Amino acid sequence: MSDQKNRIPTFDDVLEAHERIKPYIHRTPVLTSRFLNELTGAELFFKCENFQKAGAFKVRGACNAVFGLNAEQAGIGVATHSSGNHALSLSYAAGQRGIPVTVVMPHTAPQAKKDAVRGYGGKIIECEPSTTSREAVFAEVVAESGAEFVHPYNDPRVIAGQATCSLELLAQVPELDAVIAPIGGGGMISGTCLTLSNRAPEVTIYAAEPLKADDAARSLRAGHIIADDAPDTVADGLKVPLKELTWHFVSNFVSDIFTATEEEIIEAMKLTWKRMKIVIEPSCAVPLATILKNPKVFRGKRVGVIITGGNVDLDALPWT
Amino acid sequence: MSDQKNRIPTFDDVLEAHERIKPYIHRTPVLTSRFLNELTGAELFFKCENFQKAGAFKVRGACNAVFGLNAEQAGIGVATHSSGNHALSLSYAAGQRGIPVTVVMPHTAPQAKKDAVRGYGGKIIECEPSTTSREAVFAEVVAESGAEFVHPYNDPRVIAGQATCSLELLAQVPELDAVIAPIGGGGMISGTCLTLSNRAPEVTIYAAEPLKADDAARSLRAGHIIADDAPDTVADGLKVPLKELTWHFVSNFVSDIFTATEEEIIEAMKLTWKRMKIVIEPSCAVPLATILKNPKVFRGKRVGVIITGGNVDLDALPWT
Repeated sequence: MSDQKNRIPTFDDVLEAHERIKPYIHRTPVLTSRFLNELTGAELFFKCENFQKAGAFKVRGACNAVFGLNAEQAGIGVATHSSGNHALSLSYAAGQRGIPVTVVMPHTAPQAKKDAVRGYGGKIIECEPSTTSREAVFAEVVAESGAEFVHPYNDPRVIAGQATCSLELLAQVPELDAVIAPIGGGGMISGTCLTLSNRAPEVTIYAAEPLKADDAARSLRAGHIIADDAPDTVADGLKVPLKELTWHFVSNFVSDIFTATEEEIIEAMKLTWKRMKIVIEPSCAVPLATILKNPKVFRGKRVGVIITGGNVDLDALPWT
Repeated sequence: MSDQKNRIPTFDDVLEAHERIKPYIHRTPVLTSRFLNELTGAELFFKCENFQKAGAFKVRGACNAVFGLNAEQAGIGVATHSSGNHALSLSYAAGQRGIPVTVVMPHTAPQAKKDAVRGYGGKIIECEPSTTSREAVFAEVVAESGAEFVHPYNDPRVIAGQATCSLELLAQVPELDAVIAPIGGGGMISGTCLTLSNRAPEVTIYAAEPLKADDAARSLRAGHIIADDAPDTVADGLKVPLKELTWHFVSNFVSDIFTATEEEIIEAMKLTWKRMKIVIEPSCAVPLATILKNPKVFRGKRVGVIITGGNVDLDALPWT
């Protein structure tokens, strides 16, 4: 299985993934805002994965991994370590197939996230909030159960799954000039690259990153992966570093990575809530923040903007 | 004009209104939530007027009034007194037609609301935050300018405009058993009654009201209008009393008016934001709160739920 997990996914994988996961995901809508178009001078098309099952695009990759397992492996189950949307998504996907799922999570993770994982039928094993503890506990879980590890992004099945988002976007919006998505570990942006480089190579691909966690932007400039140790940003979905598979796509297909400050991210998040009346995570506001900051790049262009998720703690909003 | 303003609008008025306002409004989407269906045991169809132009259904009535004016009256302009969505909506409508609009507003109204009215091209005349001052200042404005008064709800043109919302809902969702909408002055519920009593008289009509501003529920029980003096509720769109025209529809066509406490309203509002990922006003959460509170009434039913608007002050959320 190890070789399989290091291979670069192909566009055929994406088409297969789309057929495989269709019954378990939403074809999310594309929204527009005349106000934001006037403000930016661009035509923005928001692909709303905040309306996705489990509240985030990550359910695409998780479903592709879970429903692609053979019967024997499926019977044993899947496992991951995550305190974010991937944990929810893998739990949802496993629940849909009716197979066991174990999530290793720091005991400090928010109760709401734990409840959501359990609500989808996931089993939580708690670890200390450190990489050492997480990896040790996770190794034990896999050794004992034989569960299949589904990495949040450095996995060809996951990347092929996330790539179905852009496949839908291309069908929903003709003649895009550019697509921009947030970048953390690079799963969504890699899927975007995979689909666009095959189906619409004329579309420019941009990524957007918090300035306080700008390891991907620095990696692109340096020509190799730079991984930061525990960056701190309000865009909590974007703290993790690139890995081999996602670096392949980012280094080959992403034209530029723009950054935004914490204040700019929060401002763009509020602007989206206020004007579009949709609940989005801080991470999803980073693309709009960078579009507002780099008007010359986007003016007059038709731009797809990936809204990655809507799982927000309403009792701890970043501006209150 | 006075007689015209006291007449009960007809279903022909609704059909005319729909043709008249179509170019200036959105045909808003109907959203569903599997989670909320499972929680309530009903099939809920949310008609999302939070995505409407100017952020609320009130733009339907305002556009119908503004675009129905003859050229002479249009040239003089329109006026109203409101510190809420009607002020925004009338300003939007007048801006679309390119005619003058004056809004009398207490000087204590939120700056965001004033900015929004001015953003749409409206002129604001400030008054003291009392009924006496508001009426005196407004009378002066009308006497001086000759502007046409468009009441927020007690106006046949406005009711016929709001009625187009249910007309769309009936086309979007077949075989509804019931429709529920919030009730304040009764403009939306009256429009709902007007459309459903003509097009789908088999559909039961319910209204939902804050317990702390339950004047409509008490009116329905008493058989005559009861008007409260300045009730205090988080559902700030629902503080105003019924008037003659809206009482006609409520008393004849509304089966029941359910109430919810402030806590229940806030809980339903958070639940909607969290699960549906849409930004709704406290007023729009009252129907869901009452559905959760009266499961026997709604269980097994196909229920249309009018989400009336999404203009929320993000810096003063009711739970923070």
